[in-house]
Amino acid sequence: MTEAYKKLEARFHRMSVLSGIGGMLHWDMAVIMPDGGADARSEQLATLSVLENELINAPDLGDLISSAESERLDDWQQANLAEMKRAWVHGTAVPVDLVEKMSRAETRCEVAWRKARADNDFKGLLPHLQEVLDLSIEAGKAKAEALGTSVYDALLDQYDPMMRSDRIDSLFAELESFLPDFTADVIERQKSEDKPVKPTGPFAVETQNRIGLDLMKAVGFDFDHGRLDISHHPFCGGIPEDVRLTTRYDENDFTSAIMGVLHETGHAMYERGLPADWQNQPVGKARGMTMHESQSLLVEMQACRSEEFLTYAGPVFKEAFGGDSAAWGAANLHRLYTRVEPGLIRVDADEVTYPAHVILRYRLERALIEGDMKLVDLPGAWNELMQKLLGIVPEDDRNGCMQDIHWPSGAWGYFPTYTLGAMAAAQIFAAAKESNPEIPNALSRGDFAPLMGWLRANIHSQASSKSTDAILQAATGKPLGVDAFRTHLENRYGQ
Amino acid sequence: MTEAYKKLEARFHRMSVLSGIGGMLHWDMAVIMPDGGADARSEQLATLSVLENELINAPDLGDLISSAESERLDDWQQANLAEMKRAWVHGTAVPVDLVEKMSRAETRCEVAWRKARADNDFKGLLPHLQEVLDLSIEAGKAKAEALGTSVYDALLDQYDPMMRSDRIDSLFAELESFLPDFTADVIERQKSEDKPVKPTGPFAVETQNRIGLDLMKAVGFDFDHGRLDISHHPFCGGIPEDVRLTTRYDENDFTSAIMGVLHETGHAMYERGLPADWQNQPVGKARGMTMHESQSLLVEMQACRSEEFLTYAGPVFKEAFGGDSAAWGAANLHRLYTRVEPGLIRVDADEVTYPAHVILRYRLERALIEGDMKLVDLPGAWNELMQKLLGIVPEDDRNGCMQDIHWPSGAWGYFPTYTLGAMAAAQIFAAAKESNPEIPNALSRGDFAPLMGWLRANIHSQASSKSTDAILQAATGKPLGVDAFRTHLENRYGQ
Repeated sequence: MTEAYKKLEARFHRMSVLSGIGGMLHWDMAVIMPDGGADARSEQLATLSVLENELINAPDLGDLISSAESERLDDWQQANLAEMKRAWVHGTAVPVDLVEKMSRAETRCEVAWRKARADNDFKGLLPHLQEVLDLSIEAGKAKAEALGTSVYDALLDQYDPMMRSDRIDSLFAELESFLPDFTADVIERQKSEDKPVKPTGPFAVETQNRIGLDLMKAVGFDFDHGRLDISHHPFCGGIPEDVRLTTRYDENDFTSAIMGVLHETGHAMYERGLPADWQNQPVGKARGMTMHESQSLLVEMQACRSEEFLTYAGPVFKEAFGGDSAAWGAANLHRLYTRVEPGLIRVDADEVTYPAHVILRYRLERALIEGDMKLVDLPGAWNELMQKLLGIVPEDDRNGCMQDIHWPSGAWGYFPTYTLGAMAAAQIFAAAKESNPEIPNALSRGDFAPLMGWLRANIHSQASSKSTDAILQAATGKPLGVDAFRTHLENRYGQ
Repeated sequence: MTEAYKKLEARFHRMSVLSGIGGMLHWDMAVIMPDGGADARSEQLATLSVLENELINAPDLGDLISSAESERLDDWQQANLAEMKRAWVHGTAVPVDLVEKMSRAETRCEVAWRKARADNDFKGLLPHLQEVLDLSIEAGKAKAEALGTSVYDALLDQYDPMMRSDRIDSLFAELESFLPDFTADVIERQKSEDKPVKPTGPFAVETQNRIGLDLMKAVGFDFDHGRLDISHHPFCGGIPEDVRLTTRYDENDFTSAIMGVLHETGHAMYERGLPADWQNQPVGKARGMTMHESQSLLVEMQACRSEEFLTYAGPVFKEAFGGDSAAWGAANLHRLYTRVEPGLIRVDADEVTYPAHVILRYRLERALIEGDMKLVDLPGAWNELMQKLLGIVPEDDRNGCMQDIHWPSGAWGYFPTYTLGAMAAAQIFAAAKESNPEIPNALSRGDFAPLMGWLRANIHSQASSKSTDAILQAATGKPLGVDAFRTHLENRYGQ
């Protein structure tokens, strides 16, 4: 008998459909909606949240989970039940009125952040950010008690289930043991080399769009189950059966749109590759943000900045945009796309200096959450650590501690997943190539099928049936580690 | 104390938000969604329906309504409570399993209809349509018992609240007393006149789109709260705060898109003009399909096919499309847009012959619902009545009894609202002009503000606070009647 379990499946199915509806409405808001629709849309999204919240807080849900735990379930059902329990613990740990308070404070703080960033006014942001921080700590404490973790780990667990900060500490320490010297060496060497030739624009938006669509097709994106549109901040939204990607175009820079599209396509392939049999069940969802980011970075950074792929892409770009042929050679594009330079802005960073941006934010947010630092001291601490890790200091907070939306929107514990994802991407790509040595050759013909076939079998189809580490263990022979990422950087950027 | 009433407001508010979400998802399905998203979308829409159904069937809702009826409420609150009760009666009269059966049968029948119509195969449609008819009668009986009406009136009440078939019988009898002779006279006279010059295409889609947007602005459409897009079947969707219009373009015929846009803009102005204070409450909704159709036909047929408006529009068209100038004169356009000719297809009919199409369907669907006719006899009965009312007979059922989606989709009782709406449009437009004689002059300058101001005050803002007849009584001095429509036809088409 699996009576309780079946009841749970029905409940979580409904929550998932509601959350999918929210995904469609979010996409519409970012891509299509006229400004005047904002209030009504907020209310629609809030109503969906309230309904989901009512479902997860149903008074009998805990008992159903307990009953289901003594039912005879197969492996995936057991994993599903475990994910249900995780969702239930997260969803019920924080009192409803605190959830509402947070939501309102975060919305207020996001609005204040947009203005404060434009005005370079950290003081103006401070009271709003303090409110969000205080409420996040309060919610983190409630979750920490329910999960039996530290407060920071409880927040982290929302984005990367089962990841803990002691693990991150040791992974990041390993990165820090070689990255500073390595980065300095690469920069020094690149200085002595010829500068890559930059293709000259303008690059017509229509052409960029067409190439983006062609490359999405090459990667394997199924346009019967998804779209590409334009939004201010590119994202991968919608639902696995109808994946909505967005990008934005800059007539003077075709790389940002094309690489952005490829990045989001990596996310989309993961969503589309989740097991259809477990659609709308917790176990059928993506494993977390580390795994998600690994899939986007695998496509963008590992596959599409490889010399093999650029051998294919160079002529495609050349035919589309014309102009100086020297710029479109694979070797030149590769040098262009592997240029290393410390900068102030995380989202513009290359893959060698990116980890420093993340390590900085990870240290600061932990100190803030754990009460070891006051928010008023953030700008100073930011600049000090920036100097230490990247050797540069922002002239203002706009390009310093106010550059990201994460903290104002309450996403504490999110930043580490970017670099954990980059490490996982390297590890997975190396294992895929080892398992199928044809993958690089295929990429040089614009053929992603061997890579995607392997990813579908080993990563995407695993969904949330195991932890990130267990999926990596099965797929690559090891839990998440630094080695493959280091080897990747050495191969690509070393002598 | 208004405790029960306030509880009801909260419940119905939630239902309305869910229904608005459904509106956005329907729009997306028709305009944006890739085909492969269809299954997931069906499930999203079904989930929203189930949630709404659960809310209206909440076991305490009837008691809350009874309690609220003895609370002290102001006029609008009382009207709101009456609308809540109406929604509750409709929503609870039919058992949930019958609702589900109907929904499935209708979906199957729509699919069968698309194929059967293409294949001109009424026999193939018959079993599916029979199933839909039988279930509609079963549901109609349940509603009839709850409402204390006949079965057909219970179905009619879904689309035009409080309208009854004896009323329609007498209104349609009045139409039939003059329309056949009048139509014959008009056709005879138009034969003796010069044929209007047809503007020659092709008409670039982009230009049609630009003119459509300009005319929407002229009518008063607020693009901060709405959009115009493309779909196979034009419609007005979304929610009042974010009205989503669609049209389709034909390079060889600019009139269909432009007049279609103006028609849908009439619907949109009504939605946008509903009272913001009663947003998301039953009383704040549009009064029904007769009133809705009156607003689209008022803009399209009354205002935009008037010689005054065409005086403005002619030069606009001419500048946009160029070509033969004779075609763009107001008098020529007016003759072109007032051409009367009996045809087989309802949606292509002019406003003089349109009522015959509706009367035909009204008689046949009543006979089917009331058991006076068998479905197998529909094609013969259709053709016979077509001969009698319009003097022509379709060569096949594709252009006869299978042309409309209404019956296959279970919308019995809907057709009369088209002609009731046309009558209401004439009556309202006449009253508006009488109240403000500047309206026609303003239209000749492309200025809809005087007309829309009057409509907003007298029609849109009334929402569902009164019956259609009571709104018309207050706005025009009379309940719904044939006189104004007859006068309109005589003025426009007579000697």
